[in-house]
Amino acid sequence: MDSDTEMHRKESSSENPDPVKAKCPPVLVDDVYLNGPTLDVNGAEDFIRESMRIITEDAVKKATDVREKVCEWHSPEDLKELLDLQLTDEGESDTRILERCRDAIRYSVKTTHPRFFNQLYAGMEPYSMVASFIIEALKPSLYTYEVSPVFTLVEDAVLRKMREVIGWKEGGDGIFNAGGSLSNMYAVNLARYHHCPDVKELGLSAVPRLVLFTSQECHYSISKAAAFLGIGTKNVYVVPSDNRGKMIPTALEELIQTAKSEGAVPFMVNATAGTTVLGAFDPIEEIADICEKHNLWLHVDACWGGAALMSAKHKHLLKGVHRANSVAWNPHKMLMACLQCCAFLVRDKTGLLQRCYSARASYLFQQDKFYDVSYDTGDKSVQCSRKPDAFKFWLMWKALGSKELEQRVDRAFAMAKYLAQEVKKREGFRLLMEPEYANVCFWYIPPSLRDLPDSTELWEKIHKVAPVVKERMMKKGSMMVGYQPHGDKANFFRMIIISPQMN
Amino acid sequence: MDSDTEMHRKESSSENPDPVKAKCPPVLVDDVYLNGPTLDVNGAEDFIRESMRIITEDAVKKATDVREKVCEWHSPEDLKELLDLQLTDEGESDTRILERCRDAIRYSVKTTHPRFFNQLYAGMEPYSMVASFIIEALKPSLYTYEVSPVFTLVEDAVLRKMREVIGWKEGGDGIFNAGGSLSNMYAVNLARYHHCPDVKELGLSAVPRLVLFTSQECHYSISKAAAFLGIGTKNVYVVPSDNRGKMIPTALEELIQTAKSEGAVPFMVNATAGTTVLGAFDPIEEIADICEKHNLWLHVDACWGGAALMSAKHKHLLKGVHRANSVAWNPHKMLMACLQCCAFLVRDKTGLLQRCYSARASYLFQQDKFYDVSYDTGDKSVQCSRKPDAFKFWLMWKALGSKELEQRVDRAFAMAKYLAQEVKKREGFRLLMEPEYANVCFWYIPPSLRDLPDSTELWEKIHKVAPVVKERMMKKGSMMVGYQPHGDKANFFRMIIISPQMN
Repeated sequence: MDSDTEMHRKESSSENPDPVKAKCPPVLVDDVYLNGPTLDVNGAEDFIRESMRIITEDAVKKATDVREKVCEWHSPEDLKELLDLQLTDEGESDTRILERCRDAIRYSVKTTHPRFFNQLYAGMEPYSMVASFIIEALKPSLYTYEVSPVFTLVEDAVLRKMREVIGWKEGGDGIFNAGGSLSNMYAVNLARYHHCPDVKELGLSAVPRLVLFTSQECHYSISKAAAFLGIGTKNVYVVPSDNRGKMIPTALEELIQTAKSEGAVPFMVNATAGTTVLGAFDPIEEIADICEKHNLWLHVDACWGGAALMSAKHKHLLKGVHRANSVAWNPHKMLMACLQCCAFLVRDKTGLLQRCYSARASYLFQQDKFYDVSYDTGDKSVQCSRKPDAFKFWLMWKALGSKELEQRVDRAFAMAKYLAQEVKKREGFRLLMEPEYANVCFWYIPPSLRDLPDSTELWEKIHKVAPVVKERMMKKGSMMVGYQPHGDKANFFRMIIISPQMN
Repeated sequence: MDSDTEMHRKESSSENPDPVKAKCPPVLVDDVYLNGPTLDVNGAEDFIRESMRIITEDAVKKATDVREKVCEWHSPEDLKELLDLQLTDEGESDTRILERCRDAIRYSVKTTHPRFFNQLYAGMEPYSMVASFIIEALKPSLYTYEVSPVFTLVEDAVLRKMREVIGWKEGGDGIFNAGGSLSNMYAVNLARYHHCPDVKELGLSAVPRLVLFTSQECHYSISKAAAFLGIGTKNVYVVPSDNRGKMIPTALEELIQTAKSEGAVPFMVNATAGTTVLGAFDPIEEIADICEKHNLWLHVDACWGGAALMSAKHKHLLKGVHRANSVAWNPHKMLMACLQCCAFLVRDKTGLLQRCYSARASYLFQQDKFYDVSYDTGDKSVQCSRKPDAFKFWLMWKALGSKELEQRVDRAFAMAKYLAQEVKKREGFRLLMEPEYANVCFWYIPPSLRDLPDSTELWEKIHKVAPVVKERMMKKGSMMVGYQPHGDKANFFRMIIISPQMN
């Protein structure tokens, strides 16, 4: 593509309208000629087609090719030079912009590469990717049925099906939103509103100190939620977990008593299904019993572990999840929907979500519309414009069917088991614990440390190994695996195998 | 494309590994064969290529073609039938999925169509669209430089430039996030933290009643923020606006005194630059004086009006914006970046944003990395995974340059002025007020009502006109324009002309 094929925009500057082409006499307002469009999408066709070719070659095929690097490391300082980030008065040619597209892809980490095990998501899902391209081209926003008829209905259908998988037979509610952290915040706010509807109007300064409970292994978004929602991080009571990472129910019960004895008001428990580091599942049944006894909202953060519900073999890990009041579940993790795809699901059938969140903006949620305005779901959200992320899950679910989703989940479990076996067999590797889910946690112990006696000094040395190995792998571009310290444990690798491209 | 070209996934089911192709002997774990990938992206190439053709033809070219309909109306009940939404055990062929893509596009509202004037965004921006395709294909998430090197630096560069446009000469901070509502929430939380850092840990039940101020014309997200953040909607003190929709500074000053006399603690003022319905700009200079006097955080919600800052001719509307402590500005509105693209910008240079939001998750924000971890910006966010929306603005800015962005803004202003003139000239149309920005508000008065005397009954009749006209336009697919009642005003149309495709 050469620079001659640049977009129509540069030819038809608004400063030089062509009076022959224009249907009406020139209209000049405040020195701006208004005749005719100044951007013609047909003129952009070559650019769009060429960029799609680059995306297919570089961001899809090459990015997922195991023979290619998972990343091309540059320091921030070097990369700034390479990218030439500055924004200026003059624009650039389409040819130059296409080079910039290539560069942005080249220097990005390939999260879809078969050697990317760094986060709780991975892999390329073609159907979901195509769905997200459609969304990006159409620019829908999910305030109202009027503006997003297709995606409103799709979201409803996906939420319905996900509730069915959870085991909520009829009714219920929910919303997709921008990340699992936000879903957890929705839960905290909804539980609070359920407990004390006055908080919405009067605020927390008008009510006693509210307290919520979660395990020490929970995701950090619970703490962020407490800060953001004005509850305060100290009012998150942290329940100890056992050595597998599971919340200890008796400890929960004790903490609830402690809070009550302090005059605080417990209102919710967050149980985690699939903790971030260890992949542990809190015992939901026992926690649900305690919540019932104390009349507390039970939220299950299944952002990571919810995928197990798709598997007949493994769904027992979330036994009792149907007793939760709300569930957060991210299909963008193990189920591989494109980022972001995060459902917040609610058991309530009385419109609690709507009452909790509604602000009834009259310019958006008019009540005198010509269709059933119960389809205008936007007022259930803390967002105003909201992306139709459910479509990215719906299209791939249609293509694969529940059966193939189940197979992928079963394969991820089997991969974790296999990797754990290999780690145990191989010299210099040491497994932290048998995986319950897809998180395989292990230390790599270099030859120089293998024969040393177990001691604080040894572990201090092991602690420094993972960052060095990671640096080497990233500079080579061979693999990306996360590591972290955890409690009293020295830095260890946490490897997550999700992608069906993995071999 | 016929069904023979379906993806490799269906040929290489994990149940039937081909021992000839496999390099290693078959590995069976829990009844799952682990040899070889079960999804081959090369096998999906035909599907991806064909879907891109459909997207280009239907979602780009046809969607923006003025000769096509802006929407194809169906009731929710009918559309459910047409879409066949149900999710089942078995998957569908690629051919069927491509039909579903076509249908999803066909029945969606074309927000990029030249006759879509329904929201505060419109039009097709090819560069930004391509940027968002790249994001969707690469699936980056902005926690850390390690995982998103390119997009971390791009976000930094865009925030820097936007701060420069605001007039903050050096330093400052900011973050892109999922919607302007969320940006406003960030502002409320940051102002609160600035005023009283203890709230993060101790919560609002430990401090006096906090109060914030905003005008009656502000966006409903301020009220949602107060509810969500535990402040309470009643602690949003609503300042009257004048008949142009601008906050009355003397009324603000009085309300601050009222709050103080009640023993409440004022902590912030939200000024709106470009109100949602009328497009009014609050007088920032005068409000800034009051904020300084009372030591209040000044947030400017310029989600809609921020675009005026790009225009030498019109930036006076935000005079004094550099005195704000924070600004919300959505390039996805008048500047046409793809949805969503929302910046929250902060004047503070001391790391307030980081201190306010950080939770220091050790599995993500390790301090022993081999690069400068100040580039790991994820802990400034309430989200965990976060999309690199800044890239959608950066690429189009690179392509167009500030100059063409300015021309687009000037054209939108001129279009509004022209439309207002035409409305005044044309029989049966009545302008609500001269537009200050791109919001042109008017009534359509049908022939039967034109000669009636001005009375309550007349306005009750006029109130019913807009919903009927809108219904007719949507069923015809000819145009989409928003309408709403406002204060004591009967339903009127609010027309927003942004798209350079408009003629």
